[in-house]
Parts: sequence; C-alpha cells; structure tokens
Amino acid sequence: MKLLKERIQKDGIVKPGNVLKVDSFLNHQMDITLINHIGEEFKRRFADAPITKILTIEASGIGIACIVAQYFNVPVVFAKKAQSINIDGDIYSTKIESFTHKRNYDVIISKKFLSAEDHVLIIDDFLANGCALLGLIELVKNAGAVIEGAGIVIEKGFQTGGKIIREMGIHLESLAIIDYMTDNTVTFR
Amino acid sequence: MKLLKERIQKDGIVKPGNVLKVDSFLNHQMDITLINHIGEEFKRRFADAPITKILTIEASGIGIACIVAQYFNVPVVFAKKAQSINIDGDIYSTKIESFTHKRNYDVIISKKFLSAEDHVLIIDDFLANGCALLGLIELVKNAGAVIEGAGIVIEKGFQTGGKIIREMGIHLESLAIIDYMTDNTVTFR
Repeated sequence: MKLLKERIQKDGIVKPGNVLKVDSFLNHQMDITLINHIGEEFKRRFADAPITKILTIEASGIGIACIVAQYFNVPVVFAKKAQSINIDGDIYSTKIESFTHKRNYDVIISKKFLSAEDHVLIIDDFLANGCALLGLIELVKNAGAVIEGAGIVIEKGFQTGGKIIREMGIHLESLAIIDYMTDNTVTFR
Repeated sequence: MKLLKERIQKDGIVKPGNVLKVDSFLNHQMDITLINHIGEEFKRRFADAPITKILTIEASGIGIACIVAQYFNVPVVFAKKAQSINIDGDIYSTKIESFTHKRNYDVIISKKFLSAEDHVLIIDDFLANGCALLGLIELVKNAGAVIEGAGIVIEKGFQTGGKIIREMGIHLESLAIIDYMTDNTVTFR
C-alpha cells in the first residue's frame, strides 16, 4: 500500500533493537484519514470473504479495527489482556508473549461474542514474531469459528511471524512488509 | 440520546457492586453502527468548538474516539496506562485510580502530540468517580492546551465524577446519565 509506505518513510523512526516507532500516525496519535484508507485496502483484499466479525487485541489494534469494520459492516470484538472484574467466567483464554513489553499476558474473550457461526477477520497494527496473532488464531479455533484471514498494517518481514502464519495456510495480508531497517532507512519487500 | 438509552435498557446487564455491563455493544464487542450515531451526537453537541484533537485513554476509549474523530476531522491521541519501551522519555504523566480494576495506573502521553495550540475534546466510555477524566484533564493542562469539553457515553450519575467535572466549569456532555440501577432496571436522569 503506497500511501502507507510513504508515510512510514516520512514519519517512522527506527530505534535500536529493531523497533519502528509509528506513534505519530498509527499507535499513539492516530491519523484517522490514513486509517480509513487502510480500511478500504483491507476491504479490497478480503472482498470475497463472508466476514461476520473483526477480532483484534487491546490496545493499539482497537482503533484500527473499528475504522476497518466500517468497510465490512460487522462488529468488532477485542481480546483483553488480563481478567477484568467486568468479564464473566465464561471465556476463551490463551497466553501470549509481548515483544514490546517483554512479558507474558493472559488474553481472553467472552464466549458470548465468538461462535461456530462466525467468519473472522483478525486485524492488528504489527506482526513481528507472531505471538499475538497466533494467540488470536487459537481463540478463534477454540470458538470453532472460521478464520477468513488476518490483516496486518506493518509486518516486520525479517522476523518469523509472517512465515509461520502463511505456512499454516492462513490468508495473511500485510499492507507494508519491511525487509530490513537501519538507523535511517526502512526497506520494503 | 434515545437510541443509546434503549440499547442500554435492552442489552445492558446490572451486576452487584453497581457494575453495568455493556460489553455486548460498547467495550468488548463493539457495535460500530451505534458508535457512529454516538459520533454524530457528539458532533452536534460540540458543533461550535474549534477542536483540533480528540484525547482518550486505553483501552476501551480508543475505538469510540476513532469513530467519533471522523465527525470532527481531527486525529486521536490515546493516553497509555504504563511506560512502554516504545515511548520516549519526553512525556506528560499523571496517576489515576481505576474503579474497575481497583488499582492505580501511571498514565502518559508523548509531549509531541499535545501542545499549547491544541483544542482538545476528551472522549471516554464511562464516567463514574471521575478519576480517569481528571487524569486526562491534568495531562491537557500540563500541555497548556485548551479543554473544549468532555464527551462521555455513559455517566453513572449516582457517583461524584460528573458533579466534580461540571463544577470545574468544563463542558461535559454525557449521552446517557444513570440515576440509579437495581438488579433488573436502569433509571436514567
């Protein structure tokens, strides 16, 4: 997606440890116009999939998923990272490891909001080692729902997540795949 | 807002401890069509305010803020609940107490995304004792920005947050104000 790649080149900041900061437009401050273009692009790429629900994970996936959902006319469900007193006991849960925060999370969704009738599109901002996405895939499988695909805004192509997910046979669409980063430049696949 | 109140009556569930669960349409599963109506309503109520930015707090505020932002054509900034390695040191921070989770959070925003030129509308899903909203107000004041108002989806009118915020002279608009809840019924102001 040309507009997104240009924006990453312009406003993305590469930090030590292969960290790409896109917090000026994607995951701290959010450019809603750009994210609408992202929604249009995901709709184009998953146009024929009979999607009934969009699944994401808190926190930075939620806003993107809500904008994207407008192009599919379906509800969003977001997985939560810890048990809240407002969630019933009747949940699907899994554990995921966060690359960013260097710790493990319990990730849960209420069984009420994902069922065997659902056809799910998973949306997230980043794909790196794939832990978050694999956790979400497990939640969908636990519910007996169909995974129609996964839409990722930025994939770190030099990490293994994308390869693992594609080898599972999942329809994965990443709008910008980064092959490598140096101090000053981001090179796309 | 009639549509919202009807939805709370239909799908909200009152739990012990004055907890109102609206997780089937607002803060776990999200009805994007309803939230677009919420966006339209906030635009109507803040039509004359020269808003440049919408501020919210992770996690459940983010999706609502992103949909609402489309009606104001401005970016969203969401405050984060803990220091991430992806956030620079140059931040505004405050502490807030969570009613839901019964603990304190450090809440931060990067100084890059809020300045003295900004006119801010704060958006959140719930207002109860007001701790989250007071924390966000403090962040805006630290930045020297103008608070144009706060838009809340559901206010628990039997708790003190709304009174405190209104007495500060802040333009607070709550789309549904609950005066009291019993096991089976929600009574609006």
